[in-house]
Amino acid sequence: MAGHDCPFEKRFPSELERDDPYFMWQAYNLAIDAWRRDEVPVGAVIAKDGTVIAAAHNQTIALKDPTAHAELLAVTQAAQALGDWRLTGATLYVTKEPCPMCSGAAVMARLSRVVFAMADPKMGCCGGAVALHTVDTFNHHPDVTGGVLEGECRQLMQAFFQLKRGGEAGAREAAWN
Amino acid sequence: MAGHDCPFEKRFPSELERDDPYFMWQAYNLAIDAWRRDEVPVGAVIAKDGTVIAAAHNQTIALKDPTAHAELLAVTQAAQALGDWRLTGATLYVTKEPCPMCSGAAVMARLSRVVFAMADPKMGCCGGAVALHTVDTFNHHPDVTGGVLEGECRQLMQAFFQLKRGGEAGAREAAWN
Repeated sequence: MAGHDCPFEKRFPSELERDDPYFMWQAYNLAIDAWRRDEVPVGAVIAKDGTVIAAAHNQTIALKDPTAHAELLAVTQAAQALGDWRLTGATLYVTKEPCPMCSGAAVMARLSRVVFAMADPKMGCCGGAVALHTVDTFNHHPDVTGGVLEGECRQLMQAFFQLKRGGEAGAREAAWN
Repeated sequence: MAGHDCPFEKRFPSELERDDPYFMWQAYNLAIDAWRRDEVPVGAVIAKDGTVIAAAHNQTIALKDPTAHAELLAVTQAAQALGDWRLTGATLYVTKEPCPMCSGAAVMARLSRVVFAMADPKMGCCGGAVALHTVDTFNHHPDVTGGVLEGECRQLMQAFFQLKRGGEAGAREAAWN
């Protein structure tokens, strides 16, 4: 199977209840888009007042840019949408606990909430390896919720790495780095 | 005096000795460019094998983008220059200790070294508030050197905030956030 043939299907939940899983399914669908482009399958959306204002997936390979994580691309989009670099009142939904860079971006962009699916005890900085959202001296402290659609997003990520790297090695490397 | 009238002059050291101050003066000059555009005066260059491969200043206001810090823009440029998202062997020079986002980017981009001028005990994450470069579970640990041209870069930053916000309040807010 080629890397771009993703065996997972997109999911389209009812729009009537715009809860955390509703937005996380959209991030999940973006992760599938990433897979189809042979990128590590991480997707992110940013919502404000019940509406998605930014949607992106990881593009580090295509753009040859280590900063082109789904979260960072979404933060840039959201700031454009709002016409303000401060994303106060907005929530970031992402299929994996943000890395040090993206967790830091959540602080710097003044995001009100970060909601992630699978935890990353190795590289995650929303409570996994480090909790950047709780550092006393920082000028902003986003609320963090983990574990929303955790099983689904973990399955996607693990399957990708198993395919790319094969068997046990892939499973061990499923914590994206 | 309007915000874009920077009272500091650029400095052009000899190119014969390409040491840390040589590269930091280039970051300093970029910080002056930022001031002239009414941006918080932070400049950054990335050097590899004695040559500058990326140069940027803070553009958060002009781009209305909280991710448009000098360091992050320089990382993107450097990856383009090298044709690889891994900046192994490269050194980031920046006039202020990187924020959580940019310190995280140094880890994610596999930068070999980070050299900064003025420390930021409030928001800095290269040893100021947090030391992201030393987190055991991370897959990369850049070397960090602080204090190169510290006085000059601090003077620039403090003067900018004094001008923008006035007197003592400006001095207190000189730790950029």
